[in-house]
Amino acid sequence: MIDFRSDNTHGASPEILEALARASRGTTTSYGEDPITLRVRDRCREIFETDCDVLPVLTGTAGNALAVASMTPQWGAVFCHVEAHIHRDEMGAPEFFTGGAKLIPIEGANGRIGADDVARAIGGDMAIVPACVSLTQATEAGTVYSVEEIAALASIAHANKCRVHMDGARFANAVVATGASPAELTWRAGVDVLVFGGTKNGALAAEMLVIFDRTLTAELELRRHRAGHRLSKMRFVSAQLDAYLADDLWLRNARHSNAMAQLLAKNLAAEIVRPVETNAVFARFAPEVAARLREQGALFYDWPPFGAGVVRLVTAFDTTEEEIDAFVRATLSGEARDRGSPRHR
Amino acid sequence: MIDFRSDNTHGASPEILEALARASRGTTTSYGEDPITLRVRDRCREIFETDCDVLPVLTGTAGNALAVASMTPQWGAVFCHVEAHIHRDEMGAPEFFTGGAKLIPIEGANGRIGADDVARAIGGDMAIVPACVSLTQATEAGTVYSVEEIAALASIAHANKCRVHMDGARFANAVVATGASPAELTWRAGVDVLVFGGTKNGALAAEMLVIFDRTLTAELELRRHRAGHRLSKMRFVSAQLDAYLADDLWLRNARHSNAMAQLLAKNLAAEIVRPVETNAVFARFAPEVAARLREQGALFYDWPPFGAGVVRLVTAFDTTEEEIDAFVRATLSGEARDRGSPRHR
Amino acid sequence: MIDFRSDNTHGASPEILEALARASRGTTTSYGEDPITLRVRDRCREIFETDCDVLPVLTGTAGNALAVASMTPQWGAVFCHVEAHIHRDEMGAPEFFTGGAKLIPIEGANGRIGADDVARAIGGDMAIVPACVSLTQATEAGTVYSVEEIAALASIAHANKCRVHMDGARFANAVVATGASPAELTWRAGVDVLVFGGTKNGALAAEMLVIFDRTLTAELELRRHRAGHRLSKMRFVSAQLDAYLADDLWLRNARHSNAMAQLLAKNLAAEIVRPVETNAVFARFAPEVAARLREQGALFYDWPPFGAGVVRLVTAFDTTEEEIDAFVRATLSGEARDRGSPRHR
Amino acid sequence: MIDFRSDNTHGASPEILEALARASRGTTTSYGEDPITLRVRDRCREIFETDCDVLPVLTGTAGNALAVASMTPQWGAVFCHVEAHIHRDEMGAPEFFTGGAKLIPIEGANGRIGADDVARAIGGDMAIVPACVSLTQATEAGTVYSVEEIAALASIAHANKCRVHMDGARFANAVVATGASPAELTWRAGVDVLVFGGTKNGALAAEMLVIFDRTLTAELELRRHRAGHRLSKMRFVSAQLDAYLADDLWLRNARHSNAMAQLLAKNLAAEIVRPVETNAVFARFAPEVAARLREQGALFYDWPPFGAGVVRLVTAFDTTEEEIDAFVRATLSGEARDRGSPRHR
Repeated sequence: MIDFRSDNTHGASPEILEALARASRGTTTSYGEDPITLRVRDRCREIFETDCDVLPVLTGTAGNALAVASMTPQWGAVFCHVEAHIHRDEMGAPEFFTGGAKLIPIEGANGRIGADDVARAIGGDMAIVPACVSLTQATEAGTVYSVEEIAALASIAHANKCRVHMDGARFANAVVATGASPAELTWRAGVDVLVFGGTKNGALAAEMLVIFDRTLTAELELRRHRAGHRLSKMRFVSAQLDAYLADDLWLRNARHSNAMAQLLAKNLAAEIVRPVETNAVFARFAPEVAARLREQGALFYDWPPFGAGVVRLVTAFDTTEEEIDAFVRATLSGEARDRGSPRHR
Repeated sequence: MIDFRSDNTHGASPEILEALARASRGTTTSYGEDPITLRVRDRCREIFETDCDVLPVLTGTAGNALAVASMTPQWGAVFCHVEAHIHRDEMGAPEFFTGGAKLIPIEGANGRIGADDVARAIGGDMAIVPACVSLTQATEAGTVYSVEEIAALASIAHANKCRVHMDGARFANAVVATGASPAELTWRAGVDVLVFGGTKNGALAAEMLVIFDRTLTAELELRRHRAGHRLSKMRFVSAQLDAYLADDLWLRNARHSNAMAQLLAKNLAAEIVRPVETNAVFARFAPEVAARLREQGALFYDWPPFGAGVVRLVTAFDTTEEEIDAFVRATLSGEARDRGSPRHR
Repeated sequence: MIDFRSDNTHGASPEILEALARASRGTTTSYGEDPITLRVRDRCREIFETDCDVLPVLTGTAGNALAVASMTPQWGAVFCHVEAHIHRDEMGAPEFFTGGAKLIPIEGANGRIGADDVARAIGGDMAIVPACVSLTQATEAGTVYSVEEIAALASIAHANKCRVHMDGARFANAVVATGASPAELTWRAGVDVLVFGGTKNGALAAEMLVIFDRTLTAELELRRHRAGHRLSKMRFVSAQLDAYLADDLWLRNARHSNAMAQLLAKNLAAEIVRPVETNAVFARFAPEVAARLREQGALFYDWPPFGAGVVRLVTAFDTTEEEIDAFVRATLSGEARDRGSPRHR
Repeated sequence: MIDFRSDNTHGASPEILEALARASRGTTTSYGEDPITLRVRDRCREIFETDCDVLPVLTGTAGNALAVASMTPQWGAVFCHVEAHIHRDEMGAPEFFTGGAKLIPIEGANGRIGADDVARAIGGDMAIVPACVSLTQATEAGTVYSVEEIAALASIAHANKCRVHMDGARFANAVVATGASPAELTWRAGVDVLVFGGTKNGALAAEMLVIFDRTLTAELELRRHRAGHRLSKMRFVSAQLDAYLADDLWLRNARHSNAMAQLLAKNLAAEIVRPVETNAVFARFAPEVAARLREQGALFYDWPPFGAGVVRLVTAFDTTEEEIDAFVRATLSGEARDRGSPRHR
């Protein structure tokens, strides 16, 4: 059964599971004051080439809500793309953690907001205090922001006393896609806090707040505790992140899932409605094609916001070429299949 | 090195680690709609002998705050023991999740609140609406409530339109200690929501809301999502709980740690300042004894609220008799040790 | 000096000031349990022809935020016009009072939202629970909803388990404009709570929650207390409302200010960009006209959201024909004035 | 009918009512940017001998909750007397405005908390961040803090990174009682924000935040708006305060009510259970005395927290000697009355 529903329907990388077993040996200080958590921080400092702080959390929703709340007073406004996960999918978590801040959704092609649109929104005369610009990297449309785009957005933000949050649930995929360094894509371009995802890319449940504006750290620790996200056996989240960062597993996994999406997009005989830049393919299928795929056991979601007949196909760290091939073949009618799949043409 | 700091400084049961590896195979529906999560619910229904609902969460703080918030409007009052974890240790999580309810701390011997004291507190003429009585089972003093005590408290609560929350971070230890059934200790005695702990008793990070008053379930699911505690790969929490409940691992682990505490209390040549009913021993040490233990690498916390010189010694699912023995010996001066440890007398 | 900035830059009706002096005599029970507050409730029951509950408050922002919060859980969504005061002008008060609900702004001509647009917005697949539809009557554009429009919106709302809030800061003006009865414009059409304004129409500071869905009353009283809007000397708000409702002062004041707006719109030699239905005129002035008016001391605000050069002119209960006349004359160049103002042609 | 229930059951001073009528003339800028509001600020700067900021509000609950929230993050702790109005009587308003901070009640004789007790409470090892010490001046027991006591408390507070809030619902009575200057009783002793009451002492509904730590002002303005306490016709609150401060009306009213309490206490043949320092007398009556008084129409509240049979008798700015005399006589049995009331003996 081919599963393109999401990268979070997949399991965990073996390296990460093994790290859990190792971390279980012996006793250690609880609540994050253990050597593994410290090592993750140090590894992040190498990867990001700066003395950032690092706080592991369990979910992207928690990471995003904590980060946004650390930047946004309850009377503040957060500017984000209209499709942003924090706006559409998190059941109001940012509003909850901030105590009632307002998210201002901004339209923008291919999942990206533009600096001009953000400037205009910030300048709107609502009775609210602009506080945060939130970017999703990679976006909900599977696209990425370039270093220049991030810098332009962050510049507008900072000029208006807003901080910059980056929802990096698929940050690894964006690093691979852009070819830019983690530092270039974040603090060098003006990002204040990154929520660096692991779960969708091979971890069980592990994300981390990578805090470049370290004036926010002390408060974030208190907020994390208060929100029930300060694990007593923190080492078990940190061990996942430790294995994720070791030997560039995070990049290898992302490179693979991005490549699988490219392969899928190249071989599918279907309109691709968004640029394929990371591990998501948005394709338009005739109803009989979608039905045929589902009959044969393929799993994927319709994506009506992107147009009639559009489906979302998400590849993962463990998607195989065979699965891609089988899926592509299954899109074809019996007759077409006999002529060979597009891939082989 | 003997570690009596807490049951959360210990690792995980092998059965639980193995369950994670198994759960990682294949893909599955995310956000809790997977077969393992369903199986945990069904297993709880057997154990509790009722059609309860079950929501896995990651931390006790999250579980408690969600449960209390589901029972308490923002203008409500929560009555709990003055030593309760929700009051002293959770950085105001219940206040956050409720939107500003008030916790009313109540004094009581051995970590337990009495029905009369709760009745008096509820009847105090503060401008606040009584909404929740919160019990900790086992208590922060390592003691347990009997079935009759729970029933008396719940009866007062319900008569005053309050619901009953049970913080069961060490519920397994309480079941073993009382000999009562899970059903008797909870819904049959009037408990509306139990936060059933796994983390301190062999899991990596796994607790569950066991919801007896099922009118609260729909709201609890929304609250959990909004608080960032709805894991995408929920199966990895559920797999821990599944292994925890299978073959009574939860009871075996708790039985062992309770027995180790009894052994420790029996053999220690020190005043024991609280009844030893579960897996915590509160002992008064002369300063030189505490110092000697620490020199030899033993780890434990001073517990000043229980008196000068009092320390807390917590046993765990993997504490060994050898560790107990070594610790007891280390309490003795060289001379005394030569005469044999109390255990052997 | 002619002041068209807002109806809240004006003073209070003499009848209302006199009522304050009368109410000051003797002592009375505080916190709203006084005879004047009771009389206001009874008078509202007559006016609205139903057994509504009535809670006086001090500001429209408080009234709106309380009403919306009584209908909307913290994970709920409130659907309102993109220009709504609750969305643009109240510094996030509804988000604060609800504990972080989300306002979903909806576009709509002339300040009104349409039932189809509301249905579409409710049906959008955001992770949030539809809870409240909020209407402004009269709207921020000075227009009114007809009884039929309100009924259509309320029907969509109720079919989707949403309650209906009406921001009636200028409800009196809407009653006069529509010619419909208070009952027809509110509960008979499906409104659950009306915030009935007095301040903009001759009171000092007095609004009231008129609660048709009386299941909300007890909670609203608690919320009002908690928000610091339960006055100890409540009689002084109630006395304003009492005089406001006596002898139809509220309707007389509104009738006058509406008539002044009509007179102004009729005589102004300027494009009127919104239908003039209550006491606001949105006119487009050439820059030199606006400048000339301001030189002569006229006060009014530019209203850029309604187009370049557009200004908002608000009449009040004590605006005079002479003021209108003088203002209209001042719009004319010296030459035009000599030929006679439009009014006299 | 003699009314000793509270100073808030009384009406308003004539000077204040007249000021409202004057303020109603003409139009003025709304939302607090009017000359009367400015004049109140300037008058406060004279009275307090410093460049404080001043924000009028409508209720003491609002003022207190805003002040506390401006000092206390959602994870903060507020230390106050166990009888404090913010703790017992405001329906959790401080918890609401802070987003869930914790109030830590402290015992203390005669309504006052001691510096040592505050230091001990701050040093308790709860997971919460000490943020605010809140004093009530005059206290709920009708007593006052001396300048030295305030300074000692503020010194402890500031040494522990807490700010100091003063609930001055009866600040005027405390100024009269202590003979100290407003400056000495507040900022010179370390108070950061005073909520200076008018309502209980002759206003209709008018309090003001007197902000000595002006770094808090900008945020307090936003919070006030968001909480629905930024009146459009602000001048009508400011006009009350303007008249209250003019010609020392505030001191004259307080001096009178304090004197009436002294007279009452001196003449009453009853145990007085708290020192009478301002305008409240706590007296123990035999049941038949209380019953007799009520039969004759006297109004007052039982005050069980201060002991069996204790009642609270509050005098006001317009309490008369005749009322005191009549009340005292009514406490006497027929026989005793014939012998002359205590006053005349």
